[in-house]
Amino acid sequence: MARISTYSFEEYVRLVEPFHGAVAPGVVVGGFMVDLAMSRMPEGTVFDAICETTACVPDAIQLLTRCTIGNGWLRVFNLGRFALSLYDKYEGQGIRVFIDPPKLEPWPEIKAWLFKLKPKFEQDEELLISQIERAGHSICGMQPVRIQAQYLKKKSRGSITTCPLCHEPYPAKDGVICLACQGKSPYTDFFPSHKNQDAQLFQITTAASVV
Amino acid sequence: MARISTYSFEEYVRLVEPFHGAVAPGVVVGGFMVDLAMSRMPEGTVFDAICETTACVPDAIQLLTRCTIGNGWLRVFNLGRFALSLYDKYEGQGIRVFIDPPKLEPWPEIKAWLFKLKPKFEQDEELLISQIERAGHSICGMQPVRIQAQYLKKKSRGSITTCPLCHEPYPAKDGVICLACQGKSPYTDFFPSHKNQDAQLFQITTAASVV
Repeated sequence: MARISTYSFEEYVRLVEPFHGAVAPGVVVGGFMVDLAMSRMPEGTVFDAICETTACVPDAIQLLTRCTIGNGWLRVFNLGRFALSLYDKYEGQGIRVFIDPPKLEPWPEIKAWLFKLKPKFEQDEELLISQIERAGHSICGMQPVRIQAQYLKKKSRGSITTCPLCHEPYPAKDGVICLACQGKSPYTDFFPSHKNQDAQLFQITTAASVV
Repeated sequence: MARISTYSFEEYVRLVEPFHGAVAPGVVVGGFMVDLAMSRMPEGTVFDAICETTACVPDAIQLLTRCTIGNGWLRVFNLGRFALSLYDKYEGQGIRVFIDPPKLEPWPEIKAWLFKLKPKFEQDEELLISQIERAGHSICGMQPVRIQAQYLKKKSRGSITTCPLCHEPYPAKDGVICLACQGKSPYTDFFPSHKNQDAQLFQITTAASVV
Protein backbone atom coordinates (compact mmCIF):
# COMPACT_ATOMS: atom_id res chain seq x y z
CA MET A 1 0.00 0.00 0.00
CA ALA A 2 1.22 3.46 -0.91
CA ARG A 3 2.88 5.31 1.94
CA ILE A 4 4.08 8.90 2.09
CA SER A 5 6.72 9.42 4.74
CA THR A 6 5.27 8.07 8.00
CA TYR A 7 1.69 8.33 6.71
CA SER A 8 -0.61 6.01 4.85
CA PHE A 9 -1.88 7.54 1.60
CA GLU A 10 -5.25 8.26 3.23
CA GLU A 11 -3.63 9.87 6.28
CA TYR A 12 -1.54 12.13 4.04
CA VAL A 13 -4.60 13.17 2.04
CA ARG A 14 -6.39 14.04 5.29
CA LEU A 15 -3.37 16.16 6.28
CA VAL A 16 -3.33 18.03 2.98
CA GLU A 17 -6.93 19.15 2.96
CA PRO A 18 -7.12 21.55 5.92
CA PHE A 19 -3.68 23.05 5.19
CA HIS A 20 -3.82 23.47 1.43
CA GLY A 21 -7.58 23.99 1.28
CA ALA A 22 -8.19 21.06 -1.10
CA VAL A 23 -6.71 17.70 -2.03
CA ALA A 24 -4.93 19.19 -5.05
CA PRO A 25 -3.22 16.65 -7.32
CA GLY A 26 0.02 18.66 -7.12
CA VAL A 27 0.27 18.31 -3.35
CA VAL A 28 -0.37 14.58 -3.60
CA VAL A 29 2.28 14.05 -6.30
CA GLY A 30 4.50 16.41 -4.28
CA GLY A 31 4.08 14.14 -1.26
CA PHE A 32 5.53 11.18 -3.15
CA MET A 33 8.37 13.37 -4.44
CA VAL A 34 9.30 14.58 -0.96
CA ASP A 35 9.06 11.01 0.35
CA LEU A 36 11.44 9.78 -2.38
CA ALA A 37 13.97 12.54 -1.75
CA MET A 38 13.86 11.99 2.02
CA SER A 39 14.38 8.26 1.60
CA ARG A 40 17.64 8.98 -0.22
CA MET A 41 19.10 11.38 2.33
CA PRO A 42 21.71 9.77 4.59
CA GLU A 43 20.28 9.24 8.05
CA GLY A 44 20.80 12.17 10.38
CA THR A 45 21.42 14.68 7.59
CA VAL A 46 20.11 18.11 8.51
CA PHE A 47 18.60 19.23 5.24
CA ASP A 48 17.10 22.33 3.71
CA ALA A 49 14.75 22.33 0.72
CA ILE A 50 14.47 24.05 -2.64
CA CYS A 51 11.24 24.02 -4.58
CA GLU A 52 11.32 24.86 -8.29
CA THR A 53 7.66 25.84 -8.56
CA THR A 54 5.25 27.93 -6.49
CA ALA A 55 2.46 25.50 -7.39
CA CYS A 56 1.41 23.02 -4.72
CA VAL A 57 4.80 21.35 -4.12
CA PRO A 58 5.89 23.86 -1.43
CA ASP A 59 2.98 22.70 0.71
CA ALA A 60 4.00 19.04 0.42
CA ILE A 61 7.47 20.06 1.61
CA GLN A 62 6.05 22.11 4.49
CA LEU A 63 3.75 19.27 5.58
CA LEU A 64 6.36 16.50 5.45
CA THR A 65 9.64 18.11 6.45
CA ARG A 66 10.75 20.67 9.02
CA CYS A 67 11.36 23.15 6.17
CA THR A 68 8.91 26.06 5.90
CA ILE A 69 8.90 29.44 4.17
CA GLY A 70 8.84 31.22 7.51
CA ASN A 71 11.81 29.40 9.04
CA GLY A 72 13.85 29.90 5.87
CA TRP A 73 14.70 26.23 5.42
CA LEU A 74 12.48 26.08 2.31
CA ARG A 75 13.29 28.38 -0.58
CA VAL A 76 11.17 28.70 -3.68
CA PHE A 77 12.95 29.41 -6.97
CA ASN A 78 10.13 29.71 -9.43
CA LEU A 79 11.70 27.94 -12.40
CA GLY A 80 8.38 26.49 -13.53
CA ARG A 81 9.60 22.91 -13.18
CA PHE A 82 7.65 20.44 -11.06
CA ALA A 83 10.70 19.55 -9.00
CA LEU A 84 12.32 19.87 -5.59
CA SER A 85 15.65 19.27 -3.92
CA LEU A 86 16.60 18.36 -0.40
CA TYR A 87 20.23 19.10 0.44
CA ASP A 88 22.68 19.01 3.29
CA LYS A 89 22.20 22.37 5.00
CA TYR A 90 25.93 22.87 5.62
CA GLU A 91 27.64 21.14 2.69
CA GLY A 92 25.10 21.71 -0.08
CA GLN A 93 25.03 18.30 -1.71
CA GLY A 94 21.64 16.77 -2.17
CA ILE A 95 19.00 15.00 -4.20
CA ARG A 96 16.76 16.56 -6.80
CA VAL A 97 13.46 14.85 -7.63
CA PHE A 98 11.53 15.77 -10.76
CA ILE A 99 8.71 14.46 -12.91
CA ASP A 100 10.13 12.39 -15.75
CA PRO A 101 7.75 12.67 -18.74
CA PRO A 102 8.40 9.26 -20.37
CA LYS A 103 7.39 7.64 -17.09
CA LEU A 104 3.95 9.25 -17.39
CA GLU A 105 2.97 7.10 -20.38
CA PRO A 106 1.19 4.41 -18.32
CA TRP A 107 -0.76 7.17 -16.51
CA PRO A 108 -2.70 9.19 -19.09
CA GLU A 109 -4.73 11.14 -16.52
CA ILE A 110 -1.58 12.32 -14.73
CA LYS A 111 0.01 13.26 -18.04
CA ALA A 112 -3.12 15.16 -19.14
CA TRP A 113 -3.16 17.06 -15.84
CA LEU A 114 0.56 17.93 -15.77
CA PHE A 115 0.74 19.00 -19.42
CA LYS A 116 -2.73 20.59 -19.25
CA LEU A 117 -3.87 18.52 -22.21
CA LYS A 118 -7.54 18.98 -21.36
CA PRO A 119 -9.55 21.72 -19.67
CA LYS A 120 -9.94 21.35 -15.92
CA PHE A 121 -13.68 20.64 -16.11
CA GLU A 122 -12.98 17.57 -18.27
CA GLN A 123 -10.47 16.25 -15.74
CA ASP A 124 -11.59 13.11 -13.91
CA GLU A 125 -10.41 14.11 -10.42
CA GLU A 126 -11.11 10.71 -8.86
CA LEU A 127 -9.26 8.81 -11.59
CA LEU A 128 -6.40 11.31 -11.40
CA ILE A 129 -5.88 10.90 -7.65
CA SER A 130 -6.18 7.13 -7.99
CA GLN A 131 -3.53 7.09 -10.75
CA ILE A 132 -1.27 9.28 -8.60
CA GLU A 133 -1.68 6.85 -5.70
CA ARG A 134 -0.91 3.83 -7.89
CA ALA A 135 1.96 5.50 -9.73
CA GLY A 136 3.64 6.61 -6.48
CA HIS A 137 7.34 7.30 -7.02
CA SER A 138 7.42 5.60 -10.40
CA ILE A 139 6.83 8.83 -12.35
CA CYS A 140 9.81 10.57 -10.75
CA GLY A 141 13.41 10.92 -11.79
CA MET A 142 16.29 11.78 -9.49
CA GLN A 143 19.69 13.36 -9.78
CA PRO A 144 22.40 14.45 -7.38
CA VAL A 145 22.79 18.22 -7.09
CA ARG A 146 24.98 20.71 -5.31
CA ILE A 147 23.57 24.03 -4.17
CA GLN A 148 25.47 27.23 -4.98
CA ALA A 149 27.44 28.41 -1.96
CA GLN A 150 25.59 31.75 -1.87
CA TYR A 151 22.39 29.93 -0.88
CA LEU A 152 23.95 27.85 1.88
CA LYS A 153 24.19 30.60 4.44
CA LYS A 154 21.21 32.50 5.71
CA LYS A 155 21.83 36.09 4.78
CA SER A 156 21.78 38.26 7.88
CA ARG A 157 19.41 41.17 7.64
CA GLY A 158 22.05 43.25 9.41
CA SER A 159 21.09 46.14 11.63
CA ILE A 160 17.51 47.32 11.83
CA THR A 161 16.55 50.98 11.73
CA THR A 162 13.38 53.06 11.38
CA CYS A 163 12.35 54.27 7.94
CA PRO A 164 12.08 58.10 7.95
CA LEU A 165 9.07 57.90 5.61
CA CYS A 166 6.84 55.09 6.90
CA HIS A 167 8.36 55.08 10.42
CA GLU A 168 8.58 51.28 10.42
CA PRO A 169 11.57 49.07 11.25
CA TYR A 170 13.54 47.84 8.19
CA PRO A 171 17.05 46.52 7.42
CA ALA A 172 19.41 49.50 7.19
CA LYS A 173 21.27 47.83 4.31
CA ASP A 174 18.19 48.35 2.07
CA GLY A 175 19.00 52.08 1.79
CA VAL A 176 18.08 55.40 3.38
CA ILE A 177 14.40 54.52 3.11
CA CYS A 178 12.82 51.07 3.14
CA LEU A 179 12.13 49.04 -0.02
CA ALA A 180 8.40 49.71 0.21
CA CYS A 181 8.98 53.48 0.31
CA GLN A 182 11.38 53.00 -2.62
CA GLY A 183 8.33 51.97 -4.64
CA LYS A 184 8.50 48.20 -4.34
CA SER A 185 5.24 47.89 -2.48
CA PRO A 186 2.39 45.79 -3.92
CA TYR A 187 -0.21 48.34 -2.77
CA THR A 188 -1.80 51.02 -4.91
CA ASP A 189 -2.69 53.47 -2.21
CA PHE A 190 -1.35 54.48 1.09
CA PHE A 191 -3.57 56.30 3.52
CA PRO A 192 -1.07 58.06 5.74
CA SER A 193 -3.76 59.99 7.56
CA HIS A 194 -5.34 56.70 8.57
CA LYS A 195 -2.09 55.18 9.74
CA ASN A 196 -1.65 54.44 13.42
CA GLN A 197 -5.16 55.30 14.37
CA ASP A 198 -6.64 53.53 17.34
CA ALA A 199 -6.87 49.86 16.48
CA GLN A 200 -10.02 49.53 18.53
CA LEU A 201 -11.89 52.04 16.39
CA PHE A 202 -10.66 50.81 13.08
CA GLN A 203 -12.74 48.41 11.06
CA ILE A 204 -13.42 47.86 7.40
CA THR A 205 -17.13 47.35 7.20
CA THR A 206 -17.82 47.79 3.52
CA ALA A 207 -15.69 47.92 0.43
CA ALA A 208 -16.68 51.57 0.05
CA SER A 209 -15.17 52.53 3.39
CA VAL A 210 -11.63 51.85 2.23
CA VAL A 211 -11.75 53.15 -1.33
CA MET B 1 -6.32 35.98 28.65
CA ALA B 2 -4.51 36.40 25.36
CA ARG B 3 -6.14 34.58 22.47
CA ILE B 4 -4.88 34.13 18.92
CA SER B 5 -7.69 33.39 16.51
CA THR B 6 -9.60 30.42 17.93
CA TYR B 7 -6.66 29.36 20.11
CA SER B 8 -5.54 30.17 23.61
CA PHE B 9 -2.00 31.56 23.69
CA GLU B 10 -0.68 28.19 24.90
CA GLU B 11 -2.55 26.27 22.20
CA TYR B 12 -1.10 28.55 19.52
CA VAL B 13 2.42 28.11 20.87
CA ARG B 14 1.95 24.33 20.77
CA LEU B 15 0.81 24.65 17.15
CA VAL B 16 3.86 26.70 16.16
CA GLU B 17 6.53 24.41 17.49
CA PRO B 18 6.18 21.32 15.27
CA PHE B 19 5.52 23.40 12.13
CA HIS B 20 8.13 26.12 12.47
CA GLY B 21 10.63 23.98 14.38
CA ALA B 22 10.77 26.32 17.38
CA VAL B 23 8.62 28.82 19.25
CA ALA B 24 10.28 31.74 17.48
CA PRO B 25 9.27 35.20 18.78
CA GLY B 26 8.47 36.29 15.22
CA VAL B 27 5.83 33.59 14.75
CA VAL B 28 4.25 34.47 18.08
CA VAL B 29 4.11 38.21 17.30
CA GLY B 30 2.94 37.23 13.81
CA GLY B 31 0.08 35.27 15.37
CA PHE B 32 -1.25 38.39 17.09
CA MET B 33 -0.83 40.37 13.86
CA VAL B 34 -2.80 37.84 11.81
CA ASP B 35 -5.44 37.69 14.52
CA LEU B 36 -5.81 41.49 14.48
CA ALA B 37 -6.07 41.64 10.69
CA MET B 38 -8.62 38.80 10.61
CA SER B 39 -10.74 40.46 13.26
CA ARG B 40 -11.06 43.53 11.01
CA MET B 41 -12.09 41.68 7.85
CA PRO B 42 -15.84 41.85 7.19
CA GLU B 43 -17.45 38.49 7.92
CA GLY B 44 -17.52 36.15 4.97
CA THR B 45 -14.76 37.97 3.06
CA VAL B 46 -12.67 35.54 1.04
CA PHE B 47 -9.20 36.92 1.59
CA ASP B 48 -5.68 36.40 0.32
CA ALA B 49 -2.54 37.41 2.22
CA ILE B 50 0.61 39.38 1.55
CA CYS B 51 3.59 39.10 3.85
CA GLU B 52 6.27 41.80 3.71
CA THR B 53 9.03 39.67 5.21
CA THR B 54 10.32 36.12 4.73
CA ALA B 55 11.07 35.95 8.45
CA CYS B 56 8.65 33.96 10.61
CA VAL B 57 5.44 35.88 9.76
CA PRO B 58 4.62 33.69 6.71
CA ASP B 59 4.30 30.71 9.06
CA ALA B 60 1.85 32.55 11.33
CA ILE B 61 -0.25 33.27 8.25
CA GLN B 62 -0.05 29.65 7.08
CA LEU B 63 -1.01 28.32 10.51
CA LEU B 64 -3.95 30.66 11.11
CA THR B 65 -5.51 31.26 7.71
CA ARG B 66 -6.27 29.17 4.64
CA CYS B 67 -3.50 31.02 2.78
CA THR B 68 -0.31 29.05 2.03
CA ILE B 69 2.62 29.45 -0.33
CA GLY B 70 1.64 26.30 -2.21
CA ASN B 71 -1.98 27.30 -2.82
CA GLY B 72 -0.93 30.76 -3.95
CA TRP B 73 -3.18 32.62 -1.53
CA LEU B 74 -0.14 33.83 0.40
CA ARG B 75 2.44 35.90 -1.43
CA VAL B 76 5.71 37.04 0.10
CA PHE B 77 7.10 40.40 -1.04
CA ASN B 78 10.37 40.65 0.84
CA LEU B 79 10.28 44.35 1.72
CA GLY B 80 12.03 43.77 5.04
CA ARG B 81 9.12 45.18 7.04
CA PHE B 82 7.55 43.13 9.82
CA ALA B 83 4.07 43.49 8.34
CA LEU B 84 1.27 41.65 6.59
CA SER B 85 -1.96 42.38 4.77
CA LEU B 86 -5.15 40.44 4.35
CA TYR B 87 -7.28 41.61 1.45
CA ASP B 88 -10.45 40.79 -0.40
CA LYS B 89 -9.33 38.26 -3.00
CA TYR B 90 -11.52 39.72 -5.76
CA GLU B 91 -11.67 43.45 -4.99
CA GLY B 92 -8.23 44.01 -3.46
CA GLN B 93 -9.13 46.20 -0.50
CA GLY B 94 -7.78 45.08 2.82
CA ILE B 95 -6.05 45.69 6.11
CA ARG B 96 -2.35 46.01 6.67
CA VAL B 97 -0.95 45.29 10.13
CA PHE B 98 2.56 46.38 11.06
CA ILE B 99 4.73 46.85 14.13
CA ASP B 100 4.50 50.44 15.31
CA PRO B 101 7.82 51.35 17.01
CA PRO B 102 6.53 53.95 19.53
CA LYS B 103 4.19 51.28 20.89
CA LEU B 104 7.20 49.13 21.77
CA GLU B 105 8.37 51.52 24.50
CA PRO B 106 6.63 49.67 27.37
CA TRP B 107 8.17 46.40 26.11
CA PRO B 108 11.98 46.74 26.14
CA GLU B 109 12.64 43.06 25.44
CA ILE B 110 10.44 43.10 22.31
CA LYS B 111 12.08 46.31 21.14
CA ALA B 112 15.57 44.88 21.73
CA TRP B 113 14.65 41.75 19.76
CA LEU B 114 13.00 43.54 16.79
CA PHE B 115 15.72 46.17 16.42
CA LYS B 116 18.47 43.66 17.27
CA LEU B 117 19.74 45.90 20.06
CA LYS B 118 21.57 43.06 21.79
CA PRO B 119 23.20 39.85 20.60
CA LYS B 120 20.92 36.81 20.54
CA PHE B 121 22.75 35.07 23.39
CA GLU B 122 21.94 37.99 25.70
CA GLN B 123 18.24 37.80 24.82
CA ASP B 124 16.01 36.61 27.65
CA GLU B 125 13.79 34.28 25.61
CA GLU B 126 11.32 33.63 28.43
CA LEU B 127 10.88 37.32 29.22
CA LEU B 128 10.56 38.08 25.50
CA ILE B 129 7.76 35.57 24.94
CA SER B 130 6.02 36.72 28.10
CA GLN B 131 6.19 40.37 26.96
CA ILE B 132 4.83 39.35 23.55
CA GLU B 133 1.94 37.55 25.24
CA ARG B 134 1.16 40.52 27.47
CA ALA B 135 1.60 43.10 24.71
CA GLY B 136 -0.70 41.22 22.34
CA HIS B 137 -2.09 43.50 19.62
CA SER B 138 -1.02 46.66 21.43
CA ILE B 139 2.30 46.95 19.57
CA CYS B 140 0.61 46.88 16.16
CA GLY B 141 -0.58 49.61 13.87
CA MET B 142 -3.10 49.19 11.08
CA GLN B 143 -3.96 50.88 7.84
CA PRO B 144 -6.35 50.20 4.97
CA VAL B 145 -4.63 49.15 1.75
CA ARG B 146 -5.55 48.30 -1.78
CA ILE B 147 -3.58 45.68 -3.70
CA GLN B 148 -2.38 46.47 -7.22
CA ALA B 149 -4.66 44.90 -9.80
CA GLN B 150 -1.81 42.86 -11.30
CA TYR B 151 -1.63 40.80 -8.10
CA LEU B 152 -5.34 40.11 -7.85
CA LYS B 153 -5.51 37.48 -10.53
CA LYS B 154 -3.54 34.27 -10.42
CA LYS B 155 -1.32 34.33 -13.46
CA SER B 156 -1.96 31.28 -15.59
CA ARG B 157 1.17 29.33 -16.38
CA GLY B 158 -0.22 28.85 -19.88
CA SER B 159 0.57 25.76 -21.90
CA ILE B 160 3.15 23.28 -20.68
CA THR B 161 5.79 21.78 -22.94
CA THR B 162 8.97 19.70 -22.59
CA CYS B 163 12.32 21.47 -22.37
CA PRO B 164 14.62 20.24 -25.17
CA LEU B 165 17.62 20.42 -22.83
CA CYS B 166 16.53 18.96 -19.48
CA HIS B 167 13.52 17.08 -20.94
CA GLU B 168 11.27 18.26 -18.13
CA PRO B 169 7.84 19.92 -18.35
CA TYR B 170 7.90 23.74 -18.12
CA PRO B 171 5.64 26.67 -19.08
CA ALA B 172 6.11 27.35 -22.81
CA LYS B 173 5.87 31.10 -22.18
CA ASP B 174 9.26 30.97 -20.37
CA GLY B 175 11.06 30.61 -23.73
CA VAL B 176 12.48 27.92 -26.00
CA ILE B 177 14.24 26.32 -23.04
CA CYS B 178 13.17 26.37 -19.40
CA LEU B 179 14.33 29.01 -16.91
CA ALA B 180 16.68 26.55 -15.19
CA CYS B 181 18.41 25.75 -18.50
CA GLN B 182 18.55 29.52 -19.13
CA GLY B 183 20.92 29.69 -16.16
CA LYS B 184 18.54 30.59 -13.37
CA SER B 185 19.08 27.40 -11.43
CA PRO B 186 20.39 27.51 -7.85
CA TYR B 187 22.60 24.44 -8.44
CA THR B 188 26.31 24.49 -9.23
CA ASP B 189 26.53 21.18 -11.00
CA PHE B 190 24.34 19.09 -13.11
CA PHE B 191 25.12 15.44 -13.52
CA PRO B 192 23.36 14.58 -16.77
CA SER B 193 24.86 11.12 -16.88
CA HIS B 194 23.30 10.39 -13.52
CA LYS B 195 19.91 11.72 -14.51
CA ASN B 196 17.02 9.28 -14.71
CA GLN B 197 18.95 6.36 -13.37
CA ASP B 198 16.99 3.71 -11.56
CA ALA B 199 15.56 5.27 -8.45
CA GLN B 200 15.91 2.02 -6.56
CA LEU B 201 19.66 1.91 -7.04
CA PHE B 202 20.29 5.54 -6.37
CA GLN B 203 21.35 6.65 -2.94
CA ILE B 204 23.66 9.29 -1.55
CA THR B 205 25.57 7.59 1.19
CA THR B 206 28.44 9.94 1.80
CA ALA B 207 29.14 13.51 0.87
CA ALA B 208 31.98 12.23 -1.34
CA SER B 209 29.64 10.18 -3.50
CA VAL B 210 27.99 13.24 -4.99
CA VAL B 211 30.95 15.56 -5.36
